[in-house]
Amino acid sequence: MTKAELIFQIKQKQSFLCVGLDTDIKKIPTHLLELEDPIFEFNKQIIDATKDFCVAYKPNIAFYESMGVSGWNSLHKTLDYIPKNIFTIADAKRGDIGNTSDMYARSFFKNMNFDAVTVAPYMGSDSVTPFLEFDGKWTILLALTSNKGGLDFQTFKNENGKQLFEQVLEISQTWGTDENMMYVVGATRTERLSEIREIIPNHFLLVPGVGAQGGNLQEVAKYGMNQDCGLLVNSSREIIYSGNGTDFAEKAGNEAQKLQQQMAVILSEAGI
Amino acid sequence: MTKAELIFQIKQKQSFLCVGLDTDIKKIPTHLLELEDPIFEFNKQIIDATKDFCVAYKPNIAFYESMGVSGWNSLHKTLDYIPKNIFTIADAKRGDIGNTSDMYARSFFKNMNFDAVTVAPYMGSDSVTPFLEFDGKWTILLALTSNKGGLDFQTFKNENGKQLFEQVLEISQTWGTDENMMYVVGATRTERLSEIREIIPNHFLLVPGVGAQGGNLQEVAKYGMNQDCGLLVNSSREIIYSGNGTDFAEKAGNEAQKLQQQMAVILSEAGI
Repeated sequence: MTKAELIFQIKQKQSFLCVGLDTDIKKIPTHLLELEDPIFEFNKQIIDATKDFCVAYKPNIAFYESMGVSGWNSLHKTLDYIPKNIFTIADAKRGDIGNTSDMYARSFFKNMNFDAVTVAPYMGSDSVTPFLEFDGKWTILLALTSNKGGLDFQTFKNENGKQLFEQVLEISQTWGTDENMMYVVGATRTERLSEIREIIPNHFLLVPGVGAQGGNLQEVAKYGMNQDCGLLVNSSREIIYSGNGTDFAEKAGNEAQKLQQQMAVILSEAGI
Repeated sequence: MTKAELIFQIKQKQSFLCVGLDTDIKKIPTHLLELEDPIFEFNKQIIDATKDFCVAYKPNIAFYESMGVSGWNSLHKTLDYIPKNIFTIADAKRGDIGNTSDMYARSFFKNMNFDAVTVAPYMGSDSVTPFLEFDGKWTILLALTSNKGGLDFQTFKNENGKQLFEQVLEISQTWGTDENMMYVVGATRTERLSEIREIIPNHFLLVPGVGAQGGNLQEVAKYGMNQDCGLLVNSSREIIYSGNGTDFAEKAGNEAQKLQQQMAVILSEAGI
C-alpha cells in the first residue's frame, strides 16, 4: 500500500486506528477452543467486527510463533482474511546481518504479503536496508518504545546531548524515505513527540501504548499529528479482550468504534 | 546446559567451535532436493560429519522461517537430532515488550528446547529479562556485531567517551549472571575485545564473523579468551557450504576439523 492510499483510507474512515492482533490461546473465549483453529476463528470475528473502524491490523508475531506450526497456519489464514484496503503490519522486531535480514523480509513481504514489518535498529544500516528493497512495502523502525526499559539505551546521550533514538531517526532517514519507512514511538513518550516531529516531519509514526500501557490519544495527536495525520495509533488488549463471552467480537467492535469516534473528532478539528 | 558442562565439553573436545546452520535451500547440493525434507537431510549429514569437532550448533532462524511451515518442521527435527552434549543456540535476535519477549522465550526454550537464544538489547531490561527466567537456559545479548552497520549505533559515545555497546555490557550485567548470559561480539572487532574483557571478564562470548566476514581466530583468542576459554567461535558458510557434491558433508567435516585443530593448539597453549 502506498502512502497516498493509506492517507486516503484514513480520511475515508476518519480513523487512524491500528488493531493489534496479539491473539493468545490462554485469553480467548473458551467457547472457541472447541473449533479446529481457535486463533483464526477469534481473529476472523475480531476483523469482521472492527474492520470499519480501523485502517491497519498488526499481528504480534511472537504470539503465533509460540504456537508452532499451527500458529503460522493461523497467521497465514488471518492475513488472507484481512480486507485488501487495510494496511497490515508484522510486529516482528527483526534485524540481522544483510543476508539474514533479506530472509526475514522475504518471509513477511513475499510469503505472507504483509505491507510492513517492524525492525530493530541496533545492528545498523545493512540490517535494515534489505527490508527497504521490496517495492510497495514498508519498514517500521523502532525509535522510542513505550516500555519501561525503552529508556535504558534509547535515551543514551552523546556529548552534544543528542540521544540514541534521535541518532536513529537522523541516520536512518538516509536509508529510505517517508514513502517506505515509518517509526515506532510509544504513546507513553508524548513529551518527546514534538522533538521527534522536528527531525521527521513527514514520516508516519506507529504509536503503541494507548490504553493498557498508559498513553493518551489526545496527547499523541496534539504533539504527533502532521498535515497528513501521520499517525497509526495501535490498541491491542483493550479492544480484542474487551469481552470474553460469545459476544466478545461485538464488544471489541464497540471499543474500536469508541476510539474511531474520538479520532474522527481529532481529524475533523485538524481539517483532515 | 550449565556453564560447567559447557566448559567440560570444550576441554573434552579441545574445541570452542560453533557450527552455524544457515541452511539455505538455494545453496544445498541439488541431489538433496529430491528428498522429502532436504533442509533436515542436509543438517543431519552436516551434524554427523561435524559433531566431534564442535561444541555448539547455531541454526539461523530466518532461514527456517523463510520456508514457512515446512521450515519450522525441519528446524524441530534438526533440534531433536543434535546430540544432547552439544549446546544449541537459536540465532533469532528477538526482543520486544515483556509479555511478547516471554512468548518468544517459550517458543525457543520450551517448544524447541534450545539452550540459548540471541536477543537484541535496543528495548532494554524488560525486553531481555523474560528470557532470563528459564532455568538452565541462556540469553545471548548483542553487544558489538560483526557487520558493517554494527558501527552505526553501537559505538555511539556519551560525554564520558563510553560507547553504547559498553553501556549495554554494563547495564545488562545487573539483569543476569555469567551462568545465564553471554554476549555477541563480532570477530571483526578484535581490537575491542580487550576493553570488553575488562567489563565482562567471566562471561562467555559468542563470536561470529571468523572466515567469510574476515575475522581471525588467533586474534580472537589472543584478546578474547579467559581462564575458562570463554569463547564460542562461530563459522557457518565456510563449513556447511565447503562442498556441493555428494561428498558435501565429508568436506564440511574436514573444514570443522581444521578449525578444531587450530583451537586445540590455542587451548593447549593456554593450559585449558
